[in-house]
Amino acid sequence: MKPNYHYQDVAETYLFSNIAKKVSAYVAEHPDKNVFRLGIGDVTLPLAPAVIKAMHEAVDEMSKKETFKGYGPEQGYAFLRESIQAYYARRGIQLALDEIFVSDGAKSDCGNILDLFDTDNSVLVPDPVYPVYVDTNVMAGRKISYMQATAENGFLPMPDESLKADIIYICSPNNPTGASYNKTQLKAWVDFAIQNDSVILYDAAYECFVETDAVRSIFEIEGARNCAIELCSFSKTAGFTGTRCGYTIVPCELVRGGMSLRKMWLRRQTTKFNGVSYIVQKGAAAVFSEEGEKQIKENLAYYKENAKLIANCMDECGIAYTGGKNSPYIWLQCPSGMTSWEFFDYLLNEIQVVGTPGSGFGKNGEGFFRLTSFGSRETTLEACDRLKKLLKK
Amino acid sequence: MKPNYHYQDVAETYLFSNIAKKVSAYVAEHPDKNVFRLGIGDVTLPLAPAVIKAMHEAVDEMSKKETFKGYGPEQGYAFLRESIQAYYARRGIQLALDEIFVSDGAKSDCGNILDLFDTDNSVLVPDPVYPVYVDTNVMAGRKISYMQATAENGFLPMPDESLKADIIYICSPNNPTGASYNKTQLKAWVDFAIQNDSVILYDAAYECFVETDAVRSIFEIEGARNCAIELCSFSKTAGFTGTRCGYTIVPCELVRGGMSLRKMWLRRQTTKFNGVSYIVQKGAAAVFSEEGEKQIKENLAYYKENAKLIANCMDECGIAYTGGKNSPYIWLQCPSGMTSWEFFDYLLNEIQVVGTPGSGFGKNGEGFFRLTSFGSRETTLEACDRLKKLLKK
Repeated sequence: MKPNYHYQDVAETYLFSNIAKKVSAYVAEHPDKNVFRLGIGDVTLPLAPAVIKAMHEAVDEMSKKETFKGYGPEQGYAFLRESIQAYYARRGIQLALDEIFVSDGAKSDCGNILDLFDTDNSVLVPDPVYPVYVDTNVMAGRKISYMQATAENGFLPMPDESLKADIIYICSPNNPTGASYNKTQLKAWVDFAIQNDSVILYDAAYECFVETDAVRSIFEIEGARNCAIELCSFSKTAGFTGTRCGYTIVPCELVRGGMSLRKMWLRRQTTKFNGVSYIVQKGAAAVFSEEGEKQIKENLAYYKENAKLIANCMDECGIAYTGGKNSPYIWLQCPSGMTSWEFFDYLLNEIQVVGTPGSGFGKNGEGFFRLTSFGSRETTLEACDRLKKLLKK
Repeated sequence: MKPNYHYQDVAETYLFSNIAKKVSAYVAEHPDKNVFRLGIGDVTLPLAPAVIKAMHEAVDEMSKKETFKGYGPEQGYAFLRESIQAYYARRGIQLALDEIFVSDGAKSDCGNILDLFDTDNSVLVPDPVYPVYVDTNVMAGRKISYMQATAENGFLPMPDESLKADIIYICSPNNPTGASYNKTQLKAWVDFAIQNDSVILYDAAYECFVETDAVRSIFEIEGARNCAIELCSFSKTAGFTGTRCGYTIVPCELVRGGMSLRKMWLRRQTTKFNGVSYIVQKGAAAVFSEEGEKQIKENLAYYKENAKLIANCMDECGIAYTGGKNSPYIWLQCPSGMTSWEFFDYLLNEIQVVGTPGSGFGKNGEGFFRLTSFGSRETTLEACDRLKKLLKK
C-alpha cells in the first residue's frame, strides 16, 4: 500500500490560524478593547427573505410523502439550471442546459475538476493566489509555475511565451487583489489558451461585484467556449457560504485529446457525487426570482458601499490599492515599507483593525494587505475612521 | 494538454436507464395497467418530524444577522460529530471527535477518499458490486481484481492468498445481495488486511437494517482501527437521499507509508470541500435526538416489515434468496434458469412488478434479481400477492 505521497508536498498554511492566534492573544491582554475585523472572506448579512421562504417551503415538501424528494439529478435540478441559464442569457450569454452543473460549492468543483486532466499537465497560477489552486495540484503531483501579479502590471499579468501551460487559472475579479480583467485583456488569454491547447479554469466567484466594463463571465469572450471552464458560486452572490451551492459551466465545444470535457465532467459527477440538497437548490433558485434578485441586489449594494468606504479611506490616506470597485476586496500597499505582518501587528496594536497579510497569498503579496467589505457598516465605518487617524499624512 | 484518458475505460452502464425505458414502453402500450416498482434503491417515506423541525429552525437562524451561519468547519460542526460519536459509543465503539468527518454523502466520500492512495495500488472489489467502487478506480487507472460472491459462499467471499490487494472494498449489509458478514468473518478480513498492509474501505450505508449478530461497524472488530475506513450515510438511516449527508471515520491509528490517513483526509477535505450546509447538518443531528431516534426507528420498521413480506413471499414460492433481514434488499435466484433480464421481462409483462436485474451488478449477478423494501406497504403487498400467484409451485 502506497499512500499518495504528494500530500507531503502540500505546504502547511498557517495564515488564518496565525491571524486568529494573534487576535486572541491581543484580546486576552486587552479585554477592554473592541476589535474591528475586516480580514475575513466570509459574508455577514443573513440570507434574503425570498431564499428563506423557498427553503421553508422545500423543508415542508420533504415532510410529506406526496412531495418528498429522494435522489435528484447529480448535475442539479432542471429548475435551478434553467434559472442559471436565464441569468447568463440576460447578459447575452447562451448556454445549453447540459453545460451547467450544480454543486455544493466552487471550492469542491475547483478541486474535483482536476480529475479530468492527466497529472502530467503543467499548471499556471497567478502569484498572489487563492491557495486552493496550488494545493489541489500539488496533491496530484502536477508541475506548477507562476505568473507574476505585481503593482507594475496592476496585478493583472498578461500572457507571454514564457507562461505556456496546459491548465491556466484566472480569477477575475481577483481574490486577493480585487483586480479585474477587461475584455481585451481576457481575449488575449483566450487566444493564448487556444494557441497552446490549454484549458482556462476561470473562477468567477466574485462576478456579482462587477459594475464597470470588467468581465463577469469568460464566455463573454469570443473563443472561450473552446478553451474555458467557468466556476461560480452563490457564496458571495447570495450569502451562501454556510448554505453551500455553486455551479460550473463546461461548454460542449471544449474537447481535448479527442475527449469532451463536458461529458467527462458529467461522468465524474454522476460517479462521485449525488447532487445538492433539494432544499438548498430551491433556495438557490429563489436567488433568481424577481423578489430574490431585488433583495440580493440590496445585500450586494451594502457590501459595495463598504468597499467604497474603504477605498475612499485609502484615497484620503494616499495609499495605493487595487479593488474596492468590482470587488469586495481592497488590496493595499503597506505604508512606510512595512512587511505584511508588520503592518498587521501595527494595525492590531494601534487601532485594533484586523486585515489579512498579503504575504499569506504568495511571494508577490509581501508588502501588501487585504481588507474586505464583508463586515457590518458600523465595523467598516469605525475601522475607516481609525485607519484615517493613523495613516493620513 | 492531456485529458485523463482513463475515463475512456469507464464502462457505460445502462442498467437503470434500460429499466426505465422498458417500463416506459410497457406503460405506453398498456395505459390501463398499474406498475409496482420494487426496483429502486431510493427511500419513499418523508423526513422525520424532528428532522423537519430542526431544519425549519436552522432556516430561521439563517434569516437573522445574529444567528446567521457563514463558512462552517470543513469536517462538520462539532454538534453533529458529537452526535455521531455518541451513536457509536452506545454500541460500545469509542471514536475521537477528529476521526469523524461529515460530508454531503457516502457516494462523494467513496469517490474522494481515493485521493489518499497512490494510483499504483491494486484494488479488490466483490462481484456483484455497487458500480461506484469500480468506476472511481477505473477513472484513476488502478488495477482491479474481483472476489467472487456466489450462492456457494452465501455471497460472502472470504479472504485467501489469491485475493491480496492494497485496497479492499467490503459492503455489509451488502448492496445488491443483502448478505451480511458476522464478526468472525470480518475478523478474518481485518487480519488479512493487516497482514498485507491493505486498507479496507468499509461501506456501512445499510448498517441501520442490522438486527441480528451481523456487524454494523467494522470498528466492532479488533484490529480494524489499524486497517479500515468506514463510510456511512444518513440516506437509508433517515431518508436523506435527497437531503444529502453522510460521514466517514478515519481512525488515528491508520498509517500507511509513514503517513496518517486521517491527517491526509483532513487535508483533502479542508482543501477540496467546504463543509455541508448548516441546515442539513442541523437536520442530521436531529436524527440522534430522543424524538428523532424514535421516529427514525418507526420508518426503518416500516421498511423492515416490507423486507420481511418480500422474504416470506420468496419462502412461500420456494425461491432461494439472501437479504430480507439485516438489509432492505432481497437478492433472489431467478426461477426456471431464467437470466436476469428474462426474469425482468417476465415479471413486468405478467404481473407488472419491476425489480433490478442482477446482471447489472457484475457477472456473478447473472441469473439473480434484486427487490427492495423501499416501496410503500401497498405496493409491496400487491407485488407480493402477484409474485405468489405467478411463482408459487
